[in-house]
Amino acid sequence: MFRRAAAVASATGHFMSRAANEGPQTDGQKHMSVKREPIEYADASLEVRAVYDDIMATRRTDWVNNFWKVLAHDPPTLRRIWSNIKDVMGPGTLDPLTKELLYVAVSASNGCHYCIASHGAAARKKGMTEAQYSELLSIVGLANETNRLVTALGVAVDPAFL
Amino acid sequence: MFRRAAAVASATGHFMSRAANEGPQTDGQKHMSVKREPIEYADASLEVRAVYDDIMATRRTDWVNNFWKVLAHDPPTLRRIWSNIKDVMGPGTLDPLTKELLYVAVSASNGCHYCIASHGAAARKKGMTEAQYSELLSIVGLANETNRLVTALGVAVDPAFL
Amino acid sequence: MFRRAAAVASATGHFMSRAANEGPQTDGQKHMSVKREPIEYADASLEVRAVYDDIMATRRTDWVNNFWKVLAHDPPTLRRIWSNIKDVMGPGTLDPLTKELLYVAVSASNGCHYCIASHGAAARKKGMTEAQYSELLSIVGLANETNRLVTALGVAVDPAFL
Amino acid sequence: MFRRAAAVASATGHFMSRAANEGPQTDGQKHMSVKREPIEYADASLEVRAVYDDIMATRRTDWVNNFWKVLAHDPPTLRRIWSNIKDVMGPGTLDPLTKELLYVAVSASNGCHYCIASHGAAARKKGMTEAQYSELLSIVGLANETNRLVTALGVAVDPAFL
Amino acid sequence: MFRRAAAVASATGHFMSRAANEGPQTDGQKHMSVKREPIEYADASLEVRAVYDDIMATRRTDWVNNFWKVLAHDPPTLRRIWSNIKDVMGPGTLDPLTKELLYVAVSASNGCHYCIASHGAAARKKGMTEAQYSELLSIVGLANETNRLVTALGVAVDPAFL
Amino acid sequence: MFRRAAAVASATGHFMSRAANEGPQTDGQKHMSVKREPIEYADASLEVRAVYDDIMATRRTDWVNNFWKVLAHDPPTLRRIWSNIKDVMGPGTLDPLTKELLYVAVSASNGCHYCIASHGAAARKKGMTEAQYSELLSIVGLANETNRLVTALGVAVDPAFL
Repeated sequence: MFRRAAAVASATGHFMSRAANEGPQTDGQKHMSVKREPIEYADASLEVRAVYDDIMATRRTDWVNNFWKVLAHDPPTLRRIWSNIKDVMGPGTLDPLTKELLYVAVSASNGCHYCIASHGAAARKKGMTEAQYSELLSIVGLANETNRLVTALGVAVDPAFL
Repeated sequence: MFRRAAAVASATGHFMSRAANEGPQTDGQKHMSVKREPIEYADASLEVRAVYDDIMATRRTDWVNNFWKVLAHDPPTLRRIWSNIKDVMGPGTLDPLTKELLYVAVSASNGCHYCIASHGAAARKKGMTEAQYSELLSIVGLANETNRLVTALGVAVDPAFL
Repeated sequence: MFRRAAAVASATGHFMSRAANEGPQTDGQKHMSVKREPIEYADASLEVRAVYDDIMATRRTDWVNNFWKVLAHDPPTLRRIWSNIKDVMGPGTLDPLTKELLYVAVSASNGCHYCIASHGAAARKKGMTEAQYSELLSIVGLANETNRLVTALGVAVDPAFL
Repeated sequence: MFRRAAAVASATGHFMSRAANEGPQTDGQKHMSVKREPIEYADASLEVRAVYDDIMATRRTDWVNNFWKVLAHDPPTLRRIWSNIKDVMGPGTLDPLTKELLYVAVSASNGCHYCIASHGAAARKKGMTEAQYSELLSIVGLANETNRLVTALGVAVDPAFL
Repeated sequence: MFRRAAAVASATGHFMSRAANEGPQTDGQKHMSVKREPIEYADASLEVRAVYDDIMATRRTDWVNNFWKVLAHDPPTLRRIWSNIKDVMGPGTLDPLTKELLYVAVSASNGCHYCIASHGAAARKKGMTEAQYSELLSIVGLANETNRLVTALGVAVDPAFL
Repeated sequence: MFRRAAAVASATGHFMSRAANEGPQTDGQKHMSVKREPIEYADASLEVRAVYDDIMATRRTDWVNNFWKVLAHDPPTLRRIWSNIKDVMGPGTLDPLTKELLYVAVSASNGCHYCIASHGAAARKKGMTEAQYSELLSIVGLANETNRLVTALGVAVDPAFL
């Protein structure tokens, strides 16, 4: 029942303790930041290291990017999201490059800089050229334009599309 | 200077005149609906027909879907958007199916039903299978999840991605 | 302290009681719908009628649109939102038509059908032509396109704009 | 009629005058920045100070955060938004911590860094633990994922939910 | 390697075959709809039934709502999303009602009708009153307002919040 | 057929080549950044200069802002977007200031800093006062609030608005 709470608690030693001298603090509370710093392998618990190890093995690389190191403050979420990424981005009926292009396109549409950078790097590694990236961005931009026009105008779906 | 205004005016005969008996109207105004009905080929002006003709020729089909028929109330916009679609979705360095998949993914992320339906149909015509569509939706969903986690947590972009 | 709760409670007689026969209900709970039906003037409490009266007097009309009739389930919110609308949309340094155009543009960008319809009607009453509405939609569409391009590409703000 | 305009004008002495030497300026215009700097208590007009005083009294603190100091360039909006926050976030039927959690969740979903930081701090002050924040973020992420799946798939609302 | 593709293929017998007589079809393509109909228990494969069974057991109910029946066209995604929901919405440090309130708030902010309806029903079952729902909606609305003001004005995060 | 690809390729000399020493690079790949640096006039190809020249002539200015210099990595998109901007923001039935206000409002609603800054500067040049900008922001904020309330509550469009 309290598995999650306990698991999270076991990682809280990693929360940065910052000097509370940046501004007024009239209530003597212990200062906790909304920002979570990356947890490096050397500082990680065994269960976090197990996920890091799987990330590196799956990706045939020797480092782990910041997203996972920040999620590591909450080990169950780290494990869950990594498991989802492996399932969704793993082998299937769309080729690996197309999958990354789709991830980049959604991230660009949502304006998530980190995700554009990380999945953009993955897409380049899988072969995305700069010309392809330009075309992808053009599609993201135009889809956002026509999505608004269609929705605002309340265009009825053609029977042929149903 | 008034090119656009004149062009638009020439199409206003197509606005639906509806009985204003659906609700209170205390000011005697001429009722104009926010909704624009599709303009069929038979009712279209010559400049609108020219765009419809180009759409059908480019797509090797004999019909025009509702999006264009609704845009036809504003001929300069009809021409402009169609020209953009031809440029962006035409031959390039990404194959035609991948382009449609990207359009569907952004539209799904934005929740535009019409665009999912119309570009989904185009993608199916170009070979998208149901299994591929399932994978595409999984990526759209997961990217929306991780986009929020990354942004909310303020994850710093790894130098390797810069 | 419980002012809000009491005020809301006084209006709950208006929640629709629906037959719970549309689907499985295995727990005997009292069925409450997520949808709130409009509360008509004749059925409204005195405090709700006071807001309706002010809406009609301010707008020099003899009816109230559904948005307010649905908000009426929560009288403090009804009063608060109406007060905000009067403040923000009342006389200022932008003319009344421009204000409605801005409201329509944001609503179109967000895909809020009701808001496009209601503020579109208000804009037409204040003089918006169909050609102007077409131009407004073009701007909404194009801004959504360039907003994504700019954000995805991480364009640095020119010093001249700072 | 010009109440708002006058009120705003009375605060314009606070707009930062910046050297216009950061870029080309070919038209001799007076440079006005899109960015508004916080107005400190010492520099504020009497009507702005009255709001600052009420913020500090309500929150039992001796400082005012930047959001209000920036809104202070437009005193009617400063007063209006503060009044809304007091109404909506004040005592009601949801406990104060739950209200802050909801504010943080919406802000995280919208990617508003400042709002996550400020309402996150308020939530921590009211007792939010790091483990609870982790769970909140997980819900925000998952809701954004399923929201897209549901909308894209056009899932019909079950009669039991109506 | 092709586990996902095979799993999906095994469910495709459930895709609705519709008469292609609703509109022009000039290319003889096999018509596939973008819309997926719910798969009832009686028609479901064994692996889909296993998830349905777990949903009903976990929720102590005897029916399954449409979201899962539509996801059932893609069994791996059905299993994955259900597993995520169980993890995220299961016992933790936030009480079950608060979790549902957070889910409803994000869904309301995103405008997902189905999700508001389904998680709103779950929240009511766990005790959410109409007055609480009204307060939740007020927070969602106000957060969306202040999120935009803060972001547009580029308010700097106070050091005390860092 | 490969017009776009060739055009893009002709500009790729401008992609920044950065030292790949910022982080682990275990695969010897050529490092390409997701960020595109502005291409100055002196470094631009003839086709890019032609667009820059037209931008400066149309705007009666002697400089080009970063958006165009970044788009210049993809000349066909540079030309296409500039052509769209000229069409949509050029003379029509809405006056030039109103058009810029609408662009700023949508950009503020979407949280695009660069677009708020650049179109805000254009609006100021055309006469937007600080008081008007304050009112615009108030409308953007309030519309975002009521858009969510209306959508979440599923308010039915009044027949008078249809």
